Amino acid sequence: MSKEMILEKIQQAAQTLKEKKIDMWLIFVRESSNIKDPSMDMVVGTNCTWQTAYIITKDGDTTAILGSLDVPNMKTIGTYKNVVGYVKSIKEPLLAAFNKYRPNKIAINYSRDSNLADGLTHGMYLELIDYLKDTPYADRLVSSEEIVNTLRGRKTPSELNLMKAAIKETLEIFDEATKFIKVGVSEKEIAAHMKKIVKERGFGLSWEADYCPSVFTGPDTAGAHAGPTDRKVQPGHVLNIDFGISYQGYCSDLQRTWYILKEGESKAPEEVQKGFDVIKNSIQLSAKAMKPGKQGCEIDDIARRYILENGYEEFPHALGHQVGRMAHDGGGLLAPRWERYGSLPFKRIEESEVYTIEPRLPIKDYGIATIEEEVVVTKDGCEFLSSPQQEIILIK
Amino acid sequence: MSKEMILEKIQQAAQTLKEKKIDMWLIFVRESSNIKDPSMDMVVGTNCTWQTAYIITKDGDTTAILGSLDVPNMKTIGTYKNVVGYVKSIKEPLLAAFNKYRPNKIAINYSRDSNLADGLTHGMYLELIDYLKDTPYADRLVSSEEIVNTLRGRKTPSELNLMKAAIKETLEIFDEATKFIKVGVSEKEIAAHMKKIVKERGFGLSWEADYCPSVFTGPDTAGAHAGPTDRKVQPGHVLNIDFGISYQGYCSDLQRTWYILKEGESKAPEEVQKGFDVIKNSIQLSAKAMKPGKQGCEIDDIARRYILENGYEEFPHALGHQVGRMAHDGGGLLAPRWERYGSLPFKRIEESEVYTIEPRLPIKDYGIATIEEEVVVTKDGCEFLSSPQQEIILIK
Repeated sequence: MSKEMILEKIQQAAQTLKEKKIDMWLIFVRESSNIKDPSMDMVVGTNCTWQTAYIITKDGDTTAILGSLDVPNMKTIGTYKNVVGYVKSIKEPLLAAFNKYRPNKIAINYSRDSNLADGLTHGMYLELIDYLKDTPYADRLVSSEEIVNTLRGRKTPSELNLMKAAIKETLEIFDEATKFIKVGVSEKEIAAHMKKIVKERGFGLSWEADYCPSVFTGPDTAGAHAGPTDRKVQPGHVLNIDFGISYQGYCSDLQRTWYILKEGESKAPEEVQKGFDVIKNSIQLSAKAMKPGKQGCEIDDIARRYILENGYEEFPHALGHQVGRMAHDGGGLLAPRWERYGSLPFKRIEESEVYTIEPRLPIKDYGIATIEEEVVVTKDGCEFLSSPQQEIILIK
Repeated sequence: MSKEMILEKIQQAAQTLKEKKIDMWLIFVRESSNIKDPSMDMVVGTNCTWQTAYIITKDGDTTAILGSLDVPNMKTIGTYKNVVGYVKSIKEPLLAAFNKYRPNKIAINYSRDSNLADGLTHGMYLELIDYLKDTPYADRLVSSEEIVNTLRGRKTPSELNLMKAAIKETLEIFDEATKFIKVGVSEKEIAAHMKKIVKERGFGLSWEADYCPSVFTGPDTAGAHAGPTDRKVQPGHVLNIDFGISYQGYCSDLQRTWYILKEGESKAPEEVQKGFDVIKNSIQLSAKAMKPGKQGCEIDDIARRYILENGYEEFPHALGHQVGRMAHDGGGLLAPRWERYGSLPFKRIEESEVYTIEPRLPIKDYGIATIEEEVVVTKDGCEFLSSPQQEIILIK
């Protein structure tokens, strides 16, 4: 991320602090090459070695307190106005910064629901509490969940442009996959071919290389979140691919479905076509209902109910998640009211957030039908960022 | 890491649990592509999406409890004996596992001192405490620090072989750098040349690409932990490079020092030679004292005192750290008794641990003299894994 984009995000953070009536945001970390608070990529732009505090106030002031050897690098990066070094302990300069800003409410990065706002480790939490124990500040700590979710969710126009470019490139690689898929090639070969194109074009993968892309051909596959196998494409298979790229720091996440024609067939069998159409329609119905103020679970309901009404089993996951610098990004989810999703299904959708919509259903004896699109929330609805899949792609 | 190496480490973990009288080790994580507990690479071997528990018992039994869509991938990876999926909440299968093993002492990944044992986020800690609140287990949680440090510290013979290979390749790339360094080339050009070789040879970098290698030429540089600049090599400069590669998952971390001869010179000036020799000797003196049972601070004392006695300022960091899967790895440090190092300087050195030794001193008007070697602790001493730098490298 460029220095300019980081400064833009820091400014957005200060604005959000003001909006949420929080005086300052503290990111408290160490050895970030080993374990990294996900907010650092967004509002810091480099790593640190020793215990480090990055502070953003609601007035837009920024202070970084670092081990002395990390100071020159931080000054070169240039994203923080005040850069303070220490040799023996962070305690004194940290308390000095607290006493300078005198915050009544301090956001720190822990959250039971949002993993991306949960970058503070428990050991570092204990360290912080210890440093603050004889001050009034220990009782003023709150979760940064709202700040982080807003920052990650609300895309700036420059962020949205990068996301559109990532989606466009991803759809082109799906077209390349269509040319490559034929009877006899294996899931692994299809994945390798797509990865080769990703590499040639200089992109990264949106998630773990082991299962990006995920390729599933025919019935009895793992169905999701698993790596490609040696299983070969056969006539009569429904095949689906889950895939995304990382493009200048921003991710895409899309799925498409193919059908492999049997000898004599010129179109997919009726039951395959029906399964595909139910998925396609459930996406359109869900998208139509999306707008700022709705809860994620209300949108999930629509696709889930439609699929059940059409006689298929319900999908064992959320309808959609936010996308951004990570494939799974932001706070709110389009998710059912299941305990494993905590409070996320109840969060309200906001303008400028980007969501996937990705229902699935099994078509008995054929495979899994699944489509994943991406939409951006607008003032009073949503727009597709991906050109939605209208027809099951037929392979001769 | 291969499945075999992970199973080897899991076995070592079970053995360590027995040794430390801890009944089970719980790694509790989610969305590990976004923020990853560093222990997962060592004893899991893949990522997860939803709240996930990886359990290793002192008897060597292993259970992974995952969101149902993560189950097929975990079974393919094949490192855990019991793989349990859930759809709505992890609580029930998690409590079932606790009730199956009935542990009296449970290690979880938090630590105030060891960042690599501090992979549990504070939000996930709160989740865990909530799940366990009506059980006897909430009061039986302890830090996994000892387990993680032992596992990361004590290298198996196969791990040590990979580390030796990483060091050998690194020293060869330093030789290539020596051929490239000359008056007029910039720090950035030297770094780019070394990175090109790393890429050609198919290695990774040991830390952040922005400052691996770090190259510092002449006086008034940042001195450490900063990226290379446009500063050009000049006659009379002392130049140093801090560099390491990642070789099949294992890191190296070494430093070397050069002197750029002025016209008419055939050797380094006396003050440069003296600075270099003091560094070189301080490493040998420290290494001679290293053996199992010593505290890290006792070793740090030796180099620190020797450098001060010779009239130089003391280095503002630890004498050495452990190396392994990360450039900064393991628990114990060869560090001074400064608050920022917590209890780490007091830990006792153990057999099969790998440490860097890396003192530094400024030579006024010339630059920084610094050498970094790597040693492995043996039964009654230590052995150099790197071939120690004996002479300052002269550039004509």
